[in-house]
Amino acid sequence: MSAAYDLCALGNAIVDVIAPADDAFLAAEGLVKGSMQLIDAARADSLYARMGPGVEASGGSAGNTVAGVSSLGGQAAYVGKVAADTLGEVFRHDITAIGAHFDTRPLQNGPGTGRCLINVTPDGQRTMSTFLGAASLLTPEDVDPAPVKGAHLLYLEGYLFDPDAARRAFAKAAGIARNAGRMIALTLSDSFVVERHRAALLAFIDSEIDVVLANEAELSALFQTPDFDQALAALRQRTRVAAVTRGAAGSVIATASETVRVKAAPVRQVVDTTGAGDQYAAGFLFGLARGRPLGECGALGSLAAAEVIGHYGPRPQVSLKALAAEAGLLQAAVA
Amino acid sequence: MSAAYDLCALGNAIVDVIAPADDAFLAAEGLVKGSMQLIDAARADSLYARMGPGVEASGGSAGNTVAGVSSLGGQAAYVGKVAADTLGEVFRHDITAIGAHFDTRPLQNGPGTGRCLINVTPDGQRTMSTFLGAASLLTPEDVDPAPVKGAHLLYLEGYLFDPDAARRAFAKAAGIARNAGRMIALTLSDSFVVERHRAALLAFIDSEIDVVLANEAELSALFQTPDFDQALAALRQRTRVAAVTRGAAGSVIATASETVRVKAAPVRQVVDTTGAGDQYAAGFLFGLARGRPLGECGALGSLAAAEVIGHYGPRPQVSLKALAAEAGLLQAAVA
Repeated sequence: MSAAYDLCALGNAIVDVIAPADDAFLAAEGLVKGSMQLIDAARADSLYARMGPGVEASGGSAGNTVAGVSSLGGQAAYVGKVAADTLGEVFRHDITAIGAHFDTRPLQNGPGTGRCLINVTPDGQRTMSTFLGAASLLTPEDVDPAPVKGAHLLYLEGYLFDPDAARRAFAKAAGIARNAGRMIALTLSDSFVVERHRAALLAFIDSEIDVVLANEAELSALFQTPDFDQALAALRQRTRVAAVTRGAAGSVIATASETVRVKAAPVRQVVDTTGAGDQYAAGFLFGLARGRPLGECGALGSLAAAEVIGHYGPRPQVSLKALAAEAGLLQAAVA
Repeated sequence: MSAAYDLCALGNAIVDVIAPADDAFLAAEGLVKGSMQLIDAARADSLYARMGPGVEASGGSAGNTVAGVSSLGGQAAYVGKVAADTLGEVFRHDITAIGAHFDTRPLQNGPGTGRCLINVTPDGQRTMSTFLGAASLLTPEDVDPAPVKGAHLLYLEGYLFDPDAARRAFAKAAGIARNAGRMIALTLSDSFVVERHRAALLAFIDSEIDVVLANEAELSALFQTPDFDQALAALRQRTRVAAVTRGAAGSVIATASETVRVKAAPVRQVVDTTGAGDQYAAGFLFGLARGRPLGECGALGSLAAAEVIGHYGPRPQVSLKALAAEAGLLQAAVA
């Protein structure tokens, strides 16, 4: 069946506040480098007050992926909850300005638009403290069936496993996609998310998910083993396609019959790794939606991740479509 | 007399919204490349709706200069009007997080915090459309005498010549600085500002200003001549120190007895010229406040401008103090 969208994503709609920090600041604030932790409004205010001067940019993992798919020349739709406030307007502007479909109704009379306070250390690592705000109040009623039915791929952000109503929104969207014969992809998002919801995630993967995206730490948390090959073998049995990123070592894509190893693309200087996994997902899933071979899907992921690592901010600053063309990707028709 | 601050600046307190654009977009929107135009709230909304996805960052010309002075290791104070809203909180956070003094009371029950919509073309040129909002409602009552008295230099942003109450705030601040024996510097800000207020600016320079910062276009507008040498000669007669930037050609510093030509610092890639003039002012004025020779003041200006041109956003992303040390500036005591 033809599709209006390459991908329809459900995620936490969040605006990032990105500021440089040093290791001593992380230690003083009790922050674990490279992790994402949820914080409440009071902690968000007090942490923000001690952070350095920042830059604000629309973020949210799946929102970043939607931006990447759009930058690659794809069509994408987004479902996520902002509040009726300034940051919500910023989020809405940015995601529609890139050409994505977004019409989730903003939250009235509740918490403000979610914010992710991102401290970036000189090694380019990002440490995230997220006040979910309105994002966590996504409900099944927010899931418009039309873009889900009309997208080759439904993409679900693991972070939304935390709020109960959002998990029900996942179930609703998955049911719609399944009935429309669409593929369903899930990112595990964060090793702490996996630790909190391991059994539920495994059950959800078994019943609904065709494509799992993860990094090594998340994969390890899901199967409670530090042995990469063992964990990958376990994941391979539970889903059709697994794509696991390994930082500078690239990624591994596994299906029942295939294992494809993909190199990381070269990065001139690692400035800020925020959005690297999200952009890998963008490239990989766009390739999948367009029916490209798995190796090319992975190469598109590497290319998109490399671009975003080279600058502050979680979304592409140049046309990924042009970068892909330069790299000879997405060119010839697939036989 | 000793001073708590190197510089106290009065300016339009504004948050920038920076987005990539092409020349066709500027043409379609009737925007003159490289210029700053004032817009009202309705136009700000409609222009924002058509702009690409953006990044938000604290801006405002003098605010950027304060950030540069702080990054150079200086002490700075800022006077400017934000509203009691989200963007106002962002502005306040950023300017205090860099260590500057800022306690202007936010505006209640009026327009929102000012926004500058900045379209950046692939050539790195920035074209600015500014909704002043609360910024234009700076009044003489907002000028706290303490930081003005306590700063080596009072720095006034020419953009504030537009609103009448702000011009009165200038006069108040200038009077306080004069009585405290401080130097007073003015940036002409924009050639259209100069066209609008030529006579008043000349009178203000004659009566109050020790240091004038300008670019070539502003200098040309002030004296209504395209002849650079003729315009510089005219400015030299009206103020103690004139520093005129000439883009890639560097800058020229003129006093009654001296003319110092300063090269531009090398820039690897021109990404976004937003803030280049503001950072030149930061380096130049910091050098002046610390009693450095004029050539070194200009070199500090070039160094600060080069850093900010290399990335999106109007404020330094690395320590200018460290860059200055690498370049051998600000090292030996002045004899």
